Amino acid sequence: MLSRKNKIALVGCGTVGGATANLLLKDRELLAARTGQSLDLAYIVDQDYSHAKELGFPASLFERDLQVALDDPEVGIVVELVGGTTVAKEITERALEAGKHVVTANKALLAHHGADLIETARANKVTVSFEASCAGGIPVIRALYDGLVANRIEALYGIVNGTCNYILTEMVHRGATYADALKAAQRNGLAEADPTLDVSGLDSAHKIAIMAALAFQRRIDFDAIPVQGIDTLHLQDVMYADRLGYVVKLLAIAHQEEAGISIRVRPSFISREHPLAWVSGPFNAVSIYGHATGHTMYYGRGAGGMPTASAVVSDIAGTAAGIYSGFFENRGVWPDQVGDAHQLSNRQITSRYYVRIMVSDSPGTLAQISSIFGNHRISIASVLQEELTGADESHGEERQVVPVVITVHESKEANMLAALDEIDSLDAVAAKSVMINIVDEHPESLG
Amino acid sequence: MLSRKNKIALVGCGTVGGATANLLLKDRELLAARTGQSLDLAYIVDQDYSHAKELGFPASLFERDLQVALDDPEVGIVVELVGGTTVAKEITERALEAGKHVVTANKALLAHHGADLIETARANKVTVSFEASCAGGIPVIRALYDGLVANRIEALYGIVNGTCNYILTEMVHRGATYADALKAAQRNGLAEADPTLDVSGLDSAHKIAIMAALAFQRRIDFDAIPVQGIDTLHLQDVMYADRLGYVVKLLAIAHQEEAGISIRVRPSFISREHPLAWVSGPFNAVSIYGHATGHTMYYGRGAGGMPTASAVVSDIAGTAAGIYSGFFENRGVWPDQVGDAHQLSNRQITSRYYVRIMVSDSPGTLAQISSIFGNHRISIASVLQEELTGADESHGEERQVVPVVITVHESKEANMLAALDEIDSLDAVAAKSVMINIVDEHPESLG
Repeated sequence: MLSRKNKIALVGCGTVGGATANLLLKDRELLAARTGQSLDLAYIVDQDYSHAKELGFPASLFERDLQVALDDPEVGIVVELVGGTTVAKEITERALEAGKHVVTANKALLAHHGADLIETARANKVTVSFEASCAGGIPVIRALYDGLVANRIEALYGIVNGTCNYILTEMVHRGATYADALKAAQRNGLAEADPTLDVSGLDSAHKIAIMAALAFQRRIDFDAIPVQGIDTLHLQDVMYADRLGYVVKLLAIAHQEEAGISIRVRPSFISREHPLAWVSGPFNAVSIYGHATGHTMYYGRGAGGMPTASAVVSDIAGTAAGIYSGFFENRGVWPDQVGDAHQLSNRQITSRYYVRIMVSDSPGTLAQISSIFGNHRISIASVLQEELTGADESHGEERQVVPVVITVHESKEANMLAALDEIDSLDAVAAKSVMINIVDEHPESLG
Repeated sequence: MLSRKNKIALVGCGTVGGATANLLLKDRELLAARTGQSLDLAYIVDQDYSHAKELGFPASLFERDLQVALDDPEVGIVVELVGGTTVAKEITERALEAGKHVVTANKALLAHHGADLIETARANKVTVSFEASCAGGIPVIRALYDGLVANRIEALYGIVNGTCNYILTEMVHRGATYADALKAAQRNGLAEADPTLDVSGLDSAHKIAIMAALAFQRRIDFDAIPVQGIDTLHLQDVMYADRLGYVVKLLAIAHQEEAGISIRVRPSFISREHPLAWVSGPFNAVSIYGHATGHTMYYGRGAGGMPTASAVVSDIAGTAAGIYSGFFENRGVWPDQVGDAHQLSNRQITSRYYVRIMVSDSPGTLAQISSIFGNHRISIASVLQEELTGADESHGEERQVVPVVITVHESKEANMLAALDEIDSLDAVAAKSVMINIVDEHPESLG
């Protein structure tokens, strides 16, 4: 127990920092009643107090110099809400080295440097906790280190980026193009002016890297994760998904296969019957398959000030009571204590696939395509090719181009890529083919 | 930490007991690696070893006399998986008084005697943990005492009985009558030969009583919970729900209202847009609304040997490491430390309602009904009355009876009951009217 050393220094007073300070200050009594701890915010450290002032926090808490908070012997917990991997890393390291517990919501920092920071924490006999780093207010990190501790985790499937899920929901429900859906997300405050980190899939990759490490008890090499975002997705493919009984979701997948661990972020076709297909708008969800529990799913708001602050404060409460150190010291899931994962590359994955090939309406092309798939030992499950309905007559000189939509049975991705290379070099193929993986309901083993 | 006193005595080797012993024995290394603890099963206490023998457990673990396990100074944890409220209560009290921590999956025991047992535990400086008592393998009890600890919980909505949800799913998807759907559940091992505890709603009531106590930090009087099961549900109403855009679910509801806490178990119409409407077959889910997180939902298998054993073992691991005592001693959510809830009766609830009134096809009846609702300050939202399609001509002498389906805006249940009493006494009304509450998506406050 920390007893006389449980004051809190909060570093970074943006959206999450402001909400966290609000929760600690305004709901002080509620938190004391529920946690059994007095959670005392002593410092709000930031370079710029304008947001903190707007929120009406007492100026007596403002401090520009982190060192003042680190030198205060009554401060036991530093809450890092700066974001990014440069300044935030330095702050976290300095806090740990000063013997302060760290609570952080920083997924990029943890995805890249998690194991090292945990090592630094242990060397200084303190802890790092990070419930808020993945899926905002949903206590999914706790599920991995505590609630599901009796399970061998077999697979994780996450919709962990609200911006992407909102954009995809707009495309599916309203038939909006990617560009229009992105604009709608920006208008509604659900996408940044520069949305790259979200729509590129990188933010989802950060989160699945953190969760996969705890789930599989392996160090994850973030740079080895194949990442594909939604920014290259065509409305046409979203519509075909719907016709075929699927929904397109940006899935962060981590899957223990015989050959190794497959971690990837990808737009995926998922059956309408799968619970993840229901998750719409800015909501997030993580499906976890354990050998004893089977499928459990955790659903909620994966971003936003208050939901994320809820997770930050749950970590502060556990740290202040000395409870979290029990998990941190005992449990075998932390990435500093385990070996490197054997991560599979894209080419080693097997999956079902959807393929859209743009072919000029010339006889024999489908036969050529089928035979190329056959040569690469890929078995076709369904073909959809429709008659043109008189469109594009203004371009009478050009060849008429029609989409041929093919789904294939479980295949090696290396074979798929080789086959599509050949197909795309056919004279009758007018554009680079689109390939999207189809994710089936993961089988439950139940012991 | 328990150090030299962490051996486990398991009492009751039925479905859950067998699965728990299996997990502890077969997955010993996995559990040691993940929990950081050696979890040593030392005794399987039961009156009848036949199931334990079938499962191939070593006979050296079998013990008929609980006292032998309680007298063993190396036993630190007693796992009560006997069920019921008589023998199980005695076993739990004896274990606590012998200074053993108790882990239990027994919802009936906790719903009736939870606060007293927790008091007994504290008096003996040990703990009682009960993750497995609600929603099987889904770590929802942990969400209430840990993951969502920074929240004022505003409402809980649970689908917490897999048998009922399976039966309702059969009725909705296959148009099966209640009786046929129950038979299907029994054939598939999803309902007991005597299904009363499940279909009456009592099992769901046990679970919501336990969860509501932690959520609202109040002692719950189990006997004051209005409980209605699915055993009186007509297929006709399930079909009308579908036509009106709803799904019928047996909901266990706990809701903090201004006047008090409303806890109830009821078949309810829930909008197809609500995530709980998606939960089908034997799956369970609990929606929790917190003032900071907004809506989070926890989904998975709410029953069955292995999923429940997963929850039991997570409690064993937390207890063995001494982590759970941190929660048990610090957190303010346990029902022994709080005051009595002010529980609302059915009559005090306000809700929207669906009503089906069977009226003989006589002129003026709808006007009479409307005016009775009006007199009781109930505002009608929609009316559905269809022409008869020539059915029942064999009963030419009888009056033709048609269903009049009415939905009403938010109303006091006391007013509804009074209005329906009057309506049912009209000459033109041929049978007791059916009233089912309509549950809207709970508003999120987000701070």
